[in-house]
Amino acid sequence: MKLASRRHGRDGALLVVSRDGSRCSAAHDVAPNLQAALDDWARCEPQLRRRFEELEADPRVGQPLSEVELTAPLPRAYEWIDGSAFINHILLVRRARGAEPPATLYSDPLVYQGGSGCLLGPNDSFSIGDGQHGLDFESEVAVVLGDTPRGTTASDAALHIRLLLLANDWTFRNLIPAELGKGFGFFVSKPATAFSPFAVTPDELGAAYRDGRLHLPLKTRLNGVLVGDPNAGAEMHFSFFELLAHVSQTRALTAGTILGSGTVSNADPARGVSCLAELRAREMIATGQPLTPFLSIGDQVEIAMFDDAGSNVFGTISERVVP
Amino acid sequence: MKLASRRHGRDGALLVVSRDGSRCSAAHDVAPNLQAALDDWARCEPQLRRRFEELEADPRVGQPLSEVELTAPLPRAYEWIDGSAFINHILLVRRARGAEPPATLYSDPLVYQGGSGCLLGPNDSFSIGDGQHGLDFESEVAVVLGDTPRGTTASDAALHIRLLLLANDWTFRNLIPAELGKGFGFFVSKPATAFSPFAVTPDELGAAYRDGRLHLPLKTRLNGVLVGDPNAGAEMHFSFFELLAHVSQTRALTAGTILGSGTVSNADPARGVSCLAELRAREMIATGQPLTPFLSIGDQVEIAMFDDAGSNVFGTISERVVP
Repeated sequence: MKLASRRHGRDGALLVVSRDGSRCSAAHDVAPNLQAALDDWARCEPQLRRRFEELEADPRVGQPLSEVELTAPLPRAYEWIDGSAFINHILLVRRARGAEPPATLYSDPLVYQGGSGCLLGPNDSFSIGDGQHGLDFESEVAVVLGDTPRGTTASDAALHIRLLLLANDWTFRNLIPAELGKGFGFFVSKPATAFSPFAVTPDELGAAYRDGRLHLPLKTRLNGVLVGDPNAGAEMHFSFFELLAHVSQTRALTAGTILGSGTVSNADPARGVSCLAELRAREMIATGQPLTPFLSIGDQVEIAMFDDAGSNVFGTISERVVP
Repeated sequence: MKLASRRHGRDGALLVVSRDGSRCSAAHDVAPNLQAALDDWARCEPQLRRRFEELEADPRVGQPLSEVELTAPLPRAYEWIDGSAFINHILLVRRARGAEPPATLYSDPLVYQGGSGCLLGPNDSFSIGDGQHGLDFESEVAVVLGDTPRGTTASDAALHIRLLLLANDWTFRNLIPAELGKGFGFFVSKPATAFSPFAVTPDELGAAYRDGRLHLPLKTRLNGVLVGDPNAGAEMHFSFFELLAHVSQTRALTAGTILGSGTVSNADPARGVSCLAELRAREMIATGQPLTPFLSIGDQVEIAMFDDAGSNVFGTISERVVP
């Protein structure tokens, strides 16, 4: 099933969305919002699935989704933990900023704890700030967890993955070198992250979701032009199962925690990029300098993933950069 | 006024606590839990203050606090952001692990984004895990924020500080070098953080809270023996106002965000320590090697702050290390 959140208060109001993304039914009688549903998933999930089946069974049920203003599925979340599971991205971006990849690149996942109190919706504009920070997008796949005990193993991880969705992990590239140089990780270089309209249960992905990876291309368009469609599956070096085992090593995670893949990236340059930093890195390697500028006011970023039948699984993140 | 949370569901049930910490009144009719009160502070604060005044006016009002099991004031929070505002701590700890302090030590605050989905209560035991991780405490002061817009200045910061409390930022020292070496900051080296029984409004501190700093000694006892009572005020190089301006530079923060001072530390060795890493660093400087071991099963850590009248302002964090 597909879930979404209508703009309402701090947490949105829960909606069930038809598979084709055209219609929705209110579900706040089951749980007022998605966080509440995740808090009580064993009770809520079957009721939400019945609502989804009713929506699928009769095209007259529900209301047009176009009439509804959506927020992020979780407009505020208790944690947003972002991995960096695509080795090609790490190698390119570190090369571009003259930093060495970590020695444990292939054995120890890179993750950072992101801000999660104010998350952006799929159509929220993004304020560029002073314009000198080097704004970039990062197109990603993410999962929403249920309660996850400390010490969960990769082989048990699937039990704790409730939903999948897409993310745009907005990044201020020019703030990264100084910030990471201080040694405590990202903070001001990572403004609020944006999420796709729909969060979907794993079964919606069918065989494309296997081994803790989502084996479909992730398409990113900048001002209407496709800049990348790398596959989010095979080259995800650490699966979501392995990322989850890593992040639950020393503490439990609460229901509603969002765990991201990091920028989706393929070694084949023909697959393009999911962030401008990679494009600039490739340009630097080829010509000695980056040619593509970072984002400017008015730029439009669109991120979506289509299944083999051509259906837009998560809806489209479509955001404009504003002053 | 003083607020606390009785163990109840995921978010606790809101209590108002008498100034002497002996009695409490339920306040779930005002707001079911502290997060809900912070979400609607303008409405809730006056009602909670009236409840506090009733409690103070008549010693027969309320019930003994000893009858109630407390959780952290916010058992799950939308963000836990921890600064490292005591320069003496940074210098000692980095020296101990052979790392250079950042070049911008005095001008650019060090902060990290901590996990906030599962926070520990003041009397929760702490599981040491495999015992090889070098468990340490870090005694800190923290503030709870109201909604804080992106770009808030230090001079406006006071408007967004709702409550103060104490924290024990549990740390696995032996996991830090490899983790920080990867460049993305702390994750597995920072398990769940514990908080004091009470969160109090700034006016409870009187003149001790000024210039965004809490000018009182923070006492830490290990197995009943005082290991430190450094003052949390004058040597806090970046005030909470400056930390807040730093962390809101590129994104807004939601109500209920917790912002910590970092380990309270004074340059005068007679003031002792708020973490074992500092003690070991001093030993290493004096003798060439650390002598004090990290924590073991059975160790008891107590953290409290007393005002000039001898009152235990936040109650005592008292936690035992268990297998």
